[in-house]
Amino acid sequence: MSGIQVLLVAGTHGNEINAPWLFEQWKQKDSLINTHNINIQTVIGNPVALEQGKRYVDRDLNRSFRKDLLLSSDLNAAEHFRALELVSEYGPNGNNPCQIAIDFHSTTSSMGSSLVVYGRRPADLAIVSLIQNHLGLPIYLHEGDNAQSGFLVESWPCGFVVEVGPVPQGLLHFQIINQTLLTLDSCLKEISNVINSKTVYPEQLIVHRHLKNIDFPRDSSGVPSSLVHKDIQGRDWYPIKNGHPLFESLSGDLTLLLEGGLEEEFVPVFINEAAYAEKNIAMSLTKKEMWDVQKDWINDLSKLLNP
Amino acid sequence: MSGIQVLLVAGTHGNEINAPWLFEQWKQKDSLINTHNINIQTVIGNPVALEQGKRYVDRDLNRSFRKDLLLSSDLNAAEHFRALELVSEYGPNGNNPCQIAIDFHSTTSSMGSSLVVYGRRPADLAIVSLIQNHLGLPIYLHEGDNAQSGFLVESWPCGFVVEVGPVPQGLLHFQIINQTLLTLDSCLKEISNVINSKTVYPEQLIVHRHLKNIDFPRDSSGVPSSLVHKDIQGRDWYPIKNGHPLFESLSGDLTLLLEGGLEEEFVPVFINEAAYAEKNIAMSLTKKEMWDVQKDWINDLSKLLNP
Repeated sequence: MSGIQVLLVAGTHGNEINAPWLFEQWKQKDSLINTHNINIQTVIGNPVALEQGKRYVDRDLNRSFRKDLLLSSDLNAAEHFRALELVSEYGPNGNNPCQIAIDFHSTTSSMGSSLVVYGRRPADLAIVSLIQNHLGLPIYLHEGDNAQSGFLVESWPCGFVVEVGPVPQGLLHFQIINQTLLTLDSCLKEISNVINSKTVYPEQLIVHRHLKNIDFPRDSSGVPSSLVHKDIQGRDWYPIKNGHPLFESLSGDLTLLLEGGLEEEFVPVFINEAAYAEKNIAMSLTKKEMWDVQKDWINDLSKLLNP
Repeated sequence: MSGIQVLLVAGTHGNEINAPWLFEQWKQKDSLINTHNINIQTVIGNPVALEQGKRYVDRDLNRSFRKDLLLSSDLNAAEHFRALELVSEYGPNGNNPCQIAIDFHSTTSSMGSSLVVYGRRPADLAIVSLIQNHLGLPIYLHEGDNAQSGFLVESWPCGFVVEVGPVPQGLLHFQIINQTLLTLDSCLKEISNVINSKTVYPEQLIVHRHLKNIDFPRDSSGVPSSLVHKDIQGRDWYPIKNGHPLFESLSGDLTLLLEGGLEEEFVPVFINEAAYAEKNIAMSLTKKEMWDVQKDWINDLSKLLNP
């Protein structure tokens, strides 16, 4: 075995209970998941919130890893302490150092099995290109969104989120578990291939690049005055064009997409994710792009995993 | 207008946010809902829990209306006080008395639009027979379940629950809102017909009579060891027979329905409702029955609404 360790995180949000359940089953039965001969650390991100069945205690753990906050002496939220704890235990310079972090989430949106990367770190892009090449799943590239920062995986040299949905919060679902299991297996297999220099990279990576968040239309007291339109509800990853209905009020007032030219396509993701309403996000708009897989991505990942 | 008042309750569970949103829209625009010339009182069942986005504060409000508890001097849960408050304000002998209570819920189960009645109170059976005759929706008759008691509507002389799903908790959904709106309209229309002696009762009422709750298979520490089988997930109201798979473990172990003869049909409801896991209910089993509409049902409802 190489000295590389992979950190697998579940329950970063305490009401996303499928991955934590899967990890628990795995603990009881080693053979459930093929580790592809990789050293693994598994951890529950927010065990207190999981116990209480809620997303978080004081604040969203997956927005609590901002470096300036972690270095501050003025922490008070439970999730800031938990973030520090996770980094000092499993961070690249921690007691039990891991080089890659994979954070398993679920969503009420119809995201299927998908990956999320933050920014354009070369090693992230390299590893997700391998997983996409294997499973064909879509990748949401989250960047340039100052209101949303401090994601867990950003505290590791390489890392990404697995999002599986749709599933309500607090509900175990056989299909969601199986999708999570399949994606986890592919992640470990591809990491193992990199460690063993058996990779075949694709020529291109398909990303859905974050453009902007779209909020519900709201009345003067902040309550949504329109709801996600039925022609877009559940249609994550389906391209839409200028003029497509986004929201509809009970009186039939439509809010349309007013973006781009007549033929330009945009791809909405995280449509009506329950947890994002408090963040004023009814959906996010992305642009589908094909990127050539770059040598420096491959080199960065290779250097990290074959030091 | 007659002196009859109908109490419409939303947000009895604080994370079922669709009906509360609909009531809020209604407040802003009177014409949204046709009251069919009935006196209406609307109220948010559990406003504190709604504000906090959770099902309840201390205990399930919709299990907090047990008469012995409400008469006890030893109350301590927030929901017991709220139950007392609702009854003393809107109860049949309250400051602002209502004769019928309709309690609007949503569920993560695929219940469609459906009604729930508790026990076999004649006036309840009469009114739901009229609504079923109008909309064709299924009715779950909950009875003989000692572990589940103290439902809100039982504190009124007549009352029932409207359940609409599937929808995750904490998520506004256009279709769920529209289903709620349509059912609400039918409820008010039929009550108005009774008040105005314009009813045409059907000959029969179709009920799905509660037989038993079925829990997840659990390991020694109480964690579910199997999940709802994919052939039954989302299949509320579809009949199943002896031998039908109910649960499946990750190792492929099946738990089958072992009930009744080879040809006997049972109908599962509230399959994988997120909030029921803590109540050890993975689904409830019912029996579909056709009951003749009885004269005493009609008389009881008529006496209540035309005193």
